[in-house]
Amino acid sequence: MKSIDEANQDALARMLAGEPHLVDVVPAAQAIPALTDRMILHAGPPIGWERMCGPLRGAVQGIAVFEGWAADLGDAAAKAAAGAFAFAPNHHFGAVGPMTGMTTKSQPLLVVENKTHGNRAYCAINEGLGKVMRFGGNDAEVLDRLRWIARVLGPALGRALRAVGGVALKPLIARGLTMGDEMHQRNVACSSLLLRQLAPALARTAQNADELAACLDFIGRNDQFFLNVAMAMGKALTDPACDIAGSTVVTAMSRNGTDFGIRVAGTGERWFTAPVEMPVGLYFPGFSEKDANPDMGDSAIVETVGLGGFAMAAAPAVVGYVGAGRPSQAAAFTRDMGEIVVGHNPAWTIPAMDFAGVPTGIDIRLVVETGVAPTINTGIAHREPGVGQVGAGVVKAPLKCFEEALVAFAETMGTA
Amino acid sequence: MKSIDEANQDALARMLAGEPHLVDVVPAAQAIPALTDRMILHAGPPIGWERMCGPLRGAVQGIAVFEGWAADLGDAAAKAAAGAFAFAPNHHFGAVGPMTGMTTKSQPLLVVENKTHGNRAYCAINEGLGKVMRFGGNDAEVLDRLRWIARVLGPALGRALRAVGGVALKPLIARGLTMGDEMHQRNVACSSLLLRQLAPALARTAQNADELAACLDFIGRNDQFFLNVAMAMGKALTDPACDIAGSTVVTAMSRNGTDFGIRVAGTGERWFTAPVEMPVGLYFPGFSEKDANPDMGDSAIVETVGLGGFAMAAAPAVVGYVGAGRPSQAAAFTRDMGEIVVGHNPAWTIPAMDFAGVPTGIDIRLVVETGVAPTINTGIAHREPGVGQVGAGVVKAPLKCFEEALVAFAETMGTA
Repeated sequence: MKSIDEANQDALARMLAGEPHLVDVVPAAQAIPALTDRMILHAGPPIGWERMCGPLRGAVQGIAVFEGWAADLGDAAAKAAAGAFAFAPNHHFGAVGPMTGMTTKSQPLLVVENKTHGNRAYCAINEGLGKVMRFGGNDAEVLDRLRWIARVLGPALGRALRAVGGVALKPLIARGLTMGDEMHQRNVACSSLLLRQLAPALARTAQNADELAACLDFIGRNDQFFLNVAMAMGKALTDPACDIAGSTVVTAMSRNGTDFGIRVAGTGERWFTAPVEMPVGLYFPGFSEKDANPDMGDSAIVETVGLGGFAMAAAPAVVGYVGAGRPSQAAAFTRDMGEIVVGHNPAWTIPAMDFAGVPTGIDIRLVVETGVAPTINTGIAHREPGVGQVGAGVVKAPLKCFEEALVAFAETMGTA
Repeated sequence: MKSIDEANQDALARMLAGEPHLVDVVPAAQAIPALTDRMILHAGPPIGWERMCGPLRGAVQGIAVFEGWAADLGDAAAKAAAGAFAFAPNHHFGAVGPMTGMTTKSQPLLVVENKTHGNRAYCAINEGLGKVMRFGGNDAEVLDRLRWIARVLGPALGRALRAVGGVALKPLIARGLTMGDEMHQRNVACSSLLLRQLAPALARTAQNADELAACLDFIGRNDQFFLNVAMAMGKALTDPACDIAGSTVVTAMSRNGTDFGIRVAGTGERWFTAPVEMPVGLYFPGFSEKDANPDMGDSAIVETVGLGGFAMAAAPAVVGYVGAGRPSQAAAFTRDMGEIVVGHNPAWTIPAMDFAGVPTGIDIRLVVETGVAPTINTGIAHREPGVGQVGAGVVKAPLKCFEEALVAFAETMGTA
């Protein structure tokens, strides 16, 4: 029988061997046939309406109106409370979503294919900054934007991606790491690089000049456009390692605004949860910690593959943005995360650390042993539905998840 | 009478107060009416055909054929030797050019306007990598590309820039410094940011979809596209300081492949020259130092305004590219350059140095006193005409220029 270390090397090798390509944008119902009427996928581990936080409820109400399953937001809340909607985590359907992470049948989804392993993963298209559904926004402006994304932007991106035969993401991320991105709170480089790579195909496949200009404008004004691509990529890279007997490597970290959950290779699809923590960070003018919702979103999948807080050294400017100290000390975060991982990624390196690879493959044993919790760079949502983002910060994954996972893992090994 | 320090603060203040905007692309003959038939502007201080290096001669031959002033390259060389062309530095006409720096009447020029001082500066459009005229390339492929730039790309960029009312360059550079660019050997961030800012206008003003796609593709494949914009910006920022009595601040550094030349605020348009040095760096596979031409180009104007080698700390990845040591030590270059400048630029800051401003305003007194020569990041051309780029490296400005400038400056002060 393989040792735990051998199983962990196997898990790491599967993650590192992945060749993720952004290949298409398709309607969610086509990507995930299980997505039928009144089914709503959300970020984080499983949760029902009654335990959902404010912004998640706000997003559920908004998406129900968007899909035509409710007449208005009040009607949507009443229907949700009456059990009219089926809720499930994105992670249960090969998908991920930032913050509230709404995925329903009519939304277009980014499709990332892992060419090495043949699996696909999905994420909705980033809506931009300001009042958006991922932060709980749900007014007419938010819904109109989702409709435009579904009608114009999604199909345009799909045409362009098919025309170029997809975009290889591993080299794109490698480049972004030399340009100050950590692919969680800072995606300006990869967003720009992706746009410049797709722009000629967008032009060649456009249906008219106005829509083309609107698409180029929308993508070009959104520094976080690439976040959702990076997330689908993270999911595509981790899924091939999601069921490896004897491995203590983390395959998912995710939050729904109430619970933080992790999954581990050796325990398969089981979630280990704990109350989610409050991010520590900086607030936009007019907001403070009392406005903040606890941490939320499937986006910690990027930390699960060595990016975000794990790649802080690549992104000194983000240290200031998330209020985590002096930018010149960014490498300290990456070095700390090196204490709790199985290895480093030779394909994703950090110039300022003399091209050391990003720390990859979180080992729950090392987390429990050292007490060093994974560092996650995150946005902060207002705790009330409909308000939106109020800041950005750093949050620690709760140690309790890792402790419980380690106990359950030991049981699978017959050594509890 | 003002002290030298006061005059230098005045020079620095004029440089820092500049608000450069990329406002247009126009034919060179329109930008610089003095550019008539058989007049060829080149990089560096003045030089005649007889003392020109191989790549500069190669470029002269090529541009003469491009302009229709010679039947072929041999004919162009014969005409050049016979005195058929008038040569002058770009710097004498408000222009700059990278490497060989050819500027002639039919080329389209980028126009950067300094909104604070009202002056304009010009640079040709970057041709991309590989075999290009700025590295002495002059075959049919090179000339065909120049024709396409003049016929399609230049006019397209001009239309887009006029449609958006120009692009402010100060904030763009500020952003590029947080994304690993130093704006000399690394411009991938600013090239991408400029493209994404102009893409919607390019789409709205395009004459047809194929030409639009070709323009987006050409810009998108060229990581150094922004270099020429940064150079015109540098010239637009330094020109308002080019004649300040009593100031020892450098207003231009430039090389023609034979001589290195500088200009100083207190001595106006006079050049102080010395034999140009050989870059120390890394060579592309198959090439070595024996293939290299000595240093060349007006591009050191970016170091003159605090970028390039002066901003090395912003671009650890470039340290490897130019073979200048360990990327983690990039800040040492910026700190060294801090020893020879009048001040720092609060608008252009470096995250990894906790947002310290780039060192700006080279003081010839400090260069002579410390023996610390300005560090310039540069491309390396093959010494034969027509070959192209063979590497990249770092070159030191020759101290002799600064020593002679200081003697001449002292004469202007009556203290020789």
